[in-house]
Amino acid sequence: MENWITEAHSDAVHFNVKVKEQLYHGQSKYQMIDIYDTYAFGRLLALDGDIMITEKDEFIYHDMIVHVPMATNPDIKKVLVIGGGDGGTVRELTRYKTIEQIDMVELDEQVVNVCRDYFKDVASGFDDPRVHLYFEDGVSFVSGLKEVYDLIIVDSTDPFGPGEGLFSKGFYENCFYALKEDGILINQHESPYYENDAYEMKRSHANIKRTFDIAKVYQFHMPTYPSGHWLFGFASKTMDPETVDLSTWEALDIKTKYYNTKIHKGAFALPTYVVNMLEEV
Amino acid sequence: MENWITEAHSDAVHFNVKVKEQLYHGQSKYQMIDIYDTYAFGRLLALDGDIMITEKDEFIYHDMIVHVPMATNPDIKKVLVIGGGDGGTVRELTRYKTIEQIDMVELDEQVVNVCRDYFKDVASGFDDPRVHLYFEDGVSFVSGLKEVYDLIIVDSTDPFGPGEGLFSKGFYENCFYALKEDGILINQHESPYYENDAYEMKRSHANIKRTFDIAKVYQFHMPTYPSGHWLFGFASKTMDPETVDLSTWEALDIKTKYYNTKIHKGAFALPTYVVNMLEEV
Repeated sequence: MENWITEAHSDAVHFNVKVKEQLYHGQSKYQMIDIYDTYAFGRLLALDGDIMITEKDEFIYHDMIVHVPMATNPDIKKVLVIGGGDGGTVRELTRYKTIEQIDMVELDEQVVNVCRDYFKDVASGFDDPRVHLYFEDGVSFVSGLKEVYDLIIVDSTDPFGPGEGLFSKGFYENCFYALKEDGILINQHESPYYENDAYEMKRSHANIKRTFDIAKVYQFHMPTYPSGHWLFGFASKTMDPETVDLSTWEALDIKTKYYNTKIHKGAFALPTYVVNMLEEV
Repeated sequence: MENWITEAHSDAVHFNVKVKEQLYHGQSKYQMIDIYDTYAFGRLLALDGDIMITEKDEFIYHDMIVHVPMATNPDIKKVLVIGGGDGGTVRELTRYKTIEQIDMVELDEQVVNVCRDYFKDVASGFDDPRVHLYFEDGVSFVSGLKEVYDLIIVDSTDPFGPGEGLFSKGFYENCFYALKEDGILINQHESPYYENDAYEMKRSHANIKRTFDIAKVYQFHMPTYPSGHWLFGFASKTMDPETVDLSTWEALDIKTKYYNTKIHKGAFALPTYVVNMLEEV
């Protein structure tokens, strides 16, 4: 007998992954948490039935969510991560000696605990003394903050269920106020290909560009996400990631498996059909 | 009852697509040919059970295989297409008034005939008077040619079965001789993610860079191919696609849905893990 899990990329497209064994299944206060050991991708974390990370390709997502803003402004000292319960974003941030404080606000403590047990490498940054974990709602956390952070990373699930508020206009406005003058907001920005994802991509972009003078979108190849074509948003009051000098980051000599300064520039070169979708909002 | 087709991306990863109806099934001298009408992607062509094109995203593949070399050298007049039985590559080439001759060498006439019937838009270039179809083996066709073409596009299936010779060292050498001094070779270059595809990517690159002074690889987001991360090779005796002036192409004002001159440059920015795989061959 074979054991396969299925993620629906749409009603009419399914992605099936062969499983060695299920390592964990639990229902937290917010969502269903599953961890599988798979043949193709190593360990795999799913929340409410959607693949979040796999051992084989989590480096792509975490390289692109962290090193793009850090290379844009290597002076970043104070960082807020919203979501990111698996720890991969925090792990990449802790590689910068110059960062002084990393606050992570994750709604679901159970995700963090489970990832500490089953994804030891991914979760390895949690024990860094600069990291402070808050198990509460990110939307409330940023509300009312004034010029506190250099960088806010919204490492959220899809905008259904617990992640929904993290795609709203009011939330992005609060992030704007919580950021310092040179502050950068990075957010999980969905995908242009399947209809539901593209709808959320457009909605998110519309909300961010109402608030930030600089509101760009960059892409990466994420094989275990629907279509493999995934996006992050880069918003800032002052900093343009495409024209900035990246030589300071080069000098840091941080070893990465996906990110490099050539891909930093290349990632902002979007297909014409994606440019058009973002412009029409 | 529901009808789903399955493509194996690897032994342990399957991609399933829901089908409205099967429009065609036939066994040619070389391969099994299937056409389905699908809910998510419109009509879909499969050869030996692998997805070749779908109506929803064939524009991505054909934009990137044609406009990258044509923007690099808009003086291209004589083109050889090897494979490409669906016609999409020829369709994009016929949009250039400056091209004088397009020879297409496809082993399997049945693929061309079926695509003329079921993919009328994709196959629409076949009737252009500049297009000459040869139903024979591409490997033999290029053998012995001397400085005939400005551009050779190898629009092949995977390197198993009928497409295998189109990945060999001897074939690339014959392409080198068949190209004029400023000639460009573009080839279907597989993908870095799944093990079998990555093996062929490395083998192909090793063979091309032994022959051509300039041997680069560029990427695009192809949602219906395994991992969504797909590559073409760009080889030339003299022309560097990354440093060339693209303003002549801009002035042509050709409307594209994926390609643009920003993505032309960005597509050559490969992830570090891919750069490393290509360098180690």
